[in-house]
Amino acid sequence: MNKNLDSLTEYPFYFLRELLSTVENNPEETLGLHIGEPKNIPPKEALNLLNKHSDLYSKYPTSKGEYFLRESYCNWLKSRFGIKSIDSDKNVLPISGSREGIFSFIQATIDTSKKNPTVIIPNPFYKIYEGAATMADASTYYVNSLEENNFKPNFKDIPENVLKDCQLLILCSPSNPTGYCIDKDEYLYLLNLAERYDFLVCSDECYTDIYESSHASPPGLLESCDITENNSKAVVFHSLSKRSNLAGLRSGFITANESIINDLLLYRTYHGVTLSLPTQMASSWAWDDSSHVEKNRRDYDKKYEIAISALQDVPKIMRPPGGFYIWLKVPSDDQLFAKRLYEESNVIVLPGSYLAIENERVNPGKGFVRIAIVHEAEIIEQALTAVNQTYTKV
Amino acid sequence: MNKNLDSLTEYPFYFLRELLSTVENNPEETLGLHIGEPKNIPPKEALNLLNKHSDLYSKYPTSKGEYFLRESYCNWLKSRFGIKSIDSDKNVLPISGSREGIFSFIQATIDTSKKNPTVIIPNPFYKIYEGAATMADASTYYVNSLEENNFKPNFKDIPENVLKDCQLLILCSPSNPTGYCIDKDEYLYLLNLAERYDFLVCSDECYTDIYESSHASPPGLLESCDITENNSKAVVFHSLSKRSNLAGLRSGFITANESIINDLLLYRTYHGVTLSLPTQMASSWAWDDSSHVEKNRRDYDKKYEIAISALQDVPKIMRPPGGFYIWLKVPSDDQLFAKRLYEESNVIVLPGSYLAIENERVNPGKGFVRIAIVHEAEIIEQALTAVNQTYTKV
Repeated sequence: MNKNLDSLTEYPFYFLRELLSTVENNPEETLGLHIGEPKNIPPKEALNLLNKHSDLYSKYPTSKGEYFLRESYCNWLKSRFGIKSIDSDKNVLPISGSREGIFSFIQATIDTSKKNPTVIIPNPFYKIYEGAATMADASTYYVNSLEENNFKPNFKDIPENVLKDCQLLILCSPSNPTGYCIDKDEYLYLLNLAERYDFLVCSDECYTDIYESSHASPPGLLESCDITENNSKAVVFHSLSKRSNLAGLRSGFITANESIINDLLLYRTYHGVTLSLPTQMASSWAWDDSSHVEKNRRDYDKKYEIAISALQDVPKIMRPPGGFYIWLKVPSDDQLFAKRLYEESNVIVLPGSYLAIENERVNPGKGFVRIAIVHEAEIIEQALTAVNQTYTKV
Repeated sequence: MNKNLDSLTEYPFYFLRELLSTVENNPEETLGLHIGEPKNIPPKEALNLLNKHSDLYSKYPTSKGEYFLRESYCNWLKSRFGIKSIDSDKNVLPISGSREGIFSFIQATIDTSKKNPTVIIPNPFYKIYEGAATMADASTYYVNSLEENNFKPNFKDIPENVLKDCQLLILCSPSNPTGYCIDKDEYLYLLNLAERYDFLVCSDECYTDIYESSHASPPGLLESCDITENNSKAVVFHSLSKRSNLAGLRSGFITANESIINDLLLYRTYHGVTLSLPTQMASSWAWDDSSHVEKNRRDYDKKYEIAISALQDVPKIMRPPGGFYIWLKVPSDDQLFAKRLYEESNVIVLPGSYLAIENERVNPGKGFVRIAIVHEAEIIEQALTAVNQTYTKV
């Protein structure tokens, strides 16, 4: 087998299972807030379209996707990010969710004929980035996102030798797990760096539609560049999993300049991952419609309101700028906290140290737990009240 | 970008479009027999299950797949190939169709730390094998399937130095495009070779359920080995695309020994390609049910009957042992034949030379065209009558 498999590490949930394995709880009463899976229901209209067109499951879909779907991507990008120019024939491609899209993009991109190909990754991070770099034979360089900087990844201090070897710099905004949102100036700074050192900025924006209703929407990388320019360094990933509560549909898309999209289309023709025609129809609707997304945001407003007020003994607790997590600093070791919470209340949260690695003598996830604020009101109230209790005791 | 992309060649259909681009035909009257897409309708029961469980599109599916689906795989393997022992927890994994499954399997398997990793591929062949080997940094060695050997790939003459470097030997049975079916003795011979030289035999059996109703079913690789043995060299791919006319569902599975499945599960967790829960439910039904597959076979019996009798001027024309193609030897250059047929009758078939490469001074696809016998009776009769006419004229 491919030797790089030996370097792939297990997923955070594997370590979580190990941590909690000695505790005997009633699994039917467990409240699991460790997984970032939306619990709001998917829009009926999208499901109806899947059903209505189910005869099309007989047909092979193409890697490029249908025109109507690519048009929906572009119309949404224009209205969401205010961009003027984008070509549905040249700048977008469907992917089967951001995990698949990012993993395969990194395989198709890393050039091992160059010296020490390097991927720069914020820390803490979504595990896929690391595993994809490993499988693509690339080195990784981590950039810590620390509380003292409001969880802004410290991109300013990347050494020049790393920038010279860098082929991809990965962003996640709103960040999983911290909720930090990158601003336009930062995007511009990174795109300039990418020009100077000739690497791509790969922006995972799958949480971009989850933010407080009364606030401005988080900026996207596309607002700081012109993706129709052939030397554009931006590559952006979007998904319906969070926006439309369609995590199981596995539907998203990638945006990049024409030359990258051409290369990816060739790669993906062999890679063989496509969206069925019914999925394309439902997805097109979900990118076109904004009312279900606004309703979704109002639901998250309520969820966070309940969560924040349940955490009454946590000083300065605030909803983060984007995403649907609370990245909670706990007054003890994060693994101990998660285990004690599970023992005392049968509530599961994810230790932050599982989402980060030790880098510059610190694991920036250590001392934090990630709590998904996705369930219905009663569960959030019960679970976060339990979190608050454990918080006051440790 | 990854330098291996430069070595990926365009798909056969790209060259076909180029070939026919100068001919002006009415596209609405074109009869396209170049694509291997089933035209029989998918089973209603499977589509109903997709619809019934559409609320589950909100949930992330796992890479491993649900227990009920893996049980369906194993029950089908037992009844179809008469195998006794297989473990649904250890020997099977869902894939999103054979293209995705085979491509990603080859990426996860090839070990570039060993000298000159080599993939042995029958010629003609399904293009994915070649592109997957290229992207995995492996060399390819081709084994011709010639008419004089009844299209049996000539595995006996592989030089020892190639066998020593070989990491994967790929089979396709029933063969796309020739319809040749590998027999048990040949499977045993290849598995022995695999033991001796330490490589895997990777068997693409996506056409295994399409054969003449009154004949015995084509043997599968699993009939010649015990997949529960940890040193088993067999890796087999199955799919619902042809069996159940569900090409758009992108649903199949891989069978291998426990250690390979464990490695693939880890790889696929990062790779991120999963089957939605509704797809898993519909797929489980489609693997469990045999009546829709028998009906499908009877439909193909009729299609071939019509096709063969329309080809009245082709000497010794016969239905091949498996699959749904006719691999027709034409009395002229295959590209010229395809172009002339298109000019004269607006019928498209695929030149065989696009499905093979020149190897040992011969392109074994040259002089053949691949005709998909998938359409309804009237179209087959009209198109194959046209093929027969062009055949008599060139």
